[in-house]
Amino acid sequence: MASSTEFSLARTIALLKRTPAAFDALLRGLPEHWVHTNEGKDTWSAYDIVGHLVVLERTDWMARLHRILEHGEALPFDRVDRFAHLKDVQSGSLEQRLDDFARLREQNISELQALNLQPQDLTRRGSHPALGPVTLAQLLAAWAVHDLTHLHQLSRVMAHQYRQAVGPWSAFEGVLQCTGHSAPP
Amino acid sequence: MASSTEFSLARTIALLKRTPAAFDALLRGLPEHWVHTNEGKDTWSAYDIVGHLVVLERTDWMARLHRILEHGEALPFDRVDRFAHLKDVQSGSLEQRLDDFARLREQNISELQALNLQPQDLTRRGSHPALGPVTLAQLLAAWAVHDLTHLHQLSRVMAHQYRQAVGPWSAFEGVLQCTGHSAPP
Repeated sequence: MASSTEFSLARTIALLKRTPAAFDALLRGLPEHWVHTNEGKDTWSAYDIVGHLVVLERTDWMARLHRILEHGEALPFDRVDRFAHLKDVQSGSLEQRLDDFARLREQNISELQALNLQPQDLTRRGSHPALGPVTLAQLLAAWAVHDLTHLHQLSRVMAHQYRQAVGPWSAFEGVLQCTGHSAPP
Repeated sequence: MASSTEFSLARTIALLKRTPAAFDALLRGLPEHWVHTNEGKDTWSAYDIVGHLVVLERTDWMARLHRILEHGEALPFDRVDRFAHLKDVQSGSLEQRLDDFARLREQNISELQALNLQPQDLTRRGSHPALGPVTLAQLLAAWAVHDLTHLHQLSRVMAHQYRQAVGPWSAFEGVLQCTGHSAPP
């Protein structure tokens, strides 16, 4: 099946609903070593990644959606603090963060569905402080792809812990060839 | 926490036990479009990826482990058919493939644990048809990292479907910068 450039609200919600459970299934109860190791100085561990997802779930996505609905392009989005989860003195266990992510996502999806957005709403525009004009549909698509970006990062961070352990197989494991693709939010 | 080069059987099993549920949580019940789209000609969809994981679970990892225990380096591993899942006339629903992956993985982990491998077993060597000498520990580490390679691929394949939909956010979503890192198994 060819890929489509078309945005679908139902498809977006279906993905957003599932990602917290995917992070949970992979991480909950794992030995500490998988959870707290990173890729080196100033990089994120699995624990950090889940913390970042919690912060954005609480402060970012729905706030931006409401900003579009209430102010359009007149009032740009607030900037995201990508390091907020690091400032919070590393609070909460991984399990608490996974619980928070699931609960906040569920609340946000309920709120999103209650808005009963219509096709014309999806084309409403807001203003991103760095990217300029964006539509509501683009915001929702970016929310879903942001989950996938961090799942992609998570798989790479975890695989990195076994970079030496796999020996000659390192040449064949695609995830070990990934150099990361960080960019500001 | 710094990363470690040390292999741990318990840590490896902990990860191998969780990955099927992570794929399941992300994929089961998702709209068809997420499941069957790929990244273009001769690339894999989510459905293909899970099929590949099932095939290797059935034919590869434990067979190679037994080959090491029984023949050491004297008899190289059989080659993996990376495209076996494509030849099987695309059989089985995604849900059946997810069930198969979980069931086969559980059986394989039980079998692995029943072997009660000792530290000296982990250093036993086998022969990979392309990579040459490898240890049993390296095989087990590669098995776990192979799961992560395909989780990494899965996140990229799915994000690709929204490459256009995210609009200007494409610059900020790391997973959309990934060019893939395929290599033979």
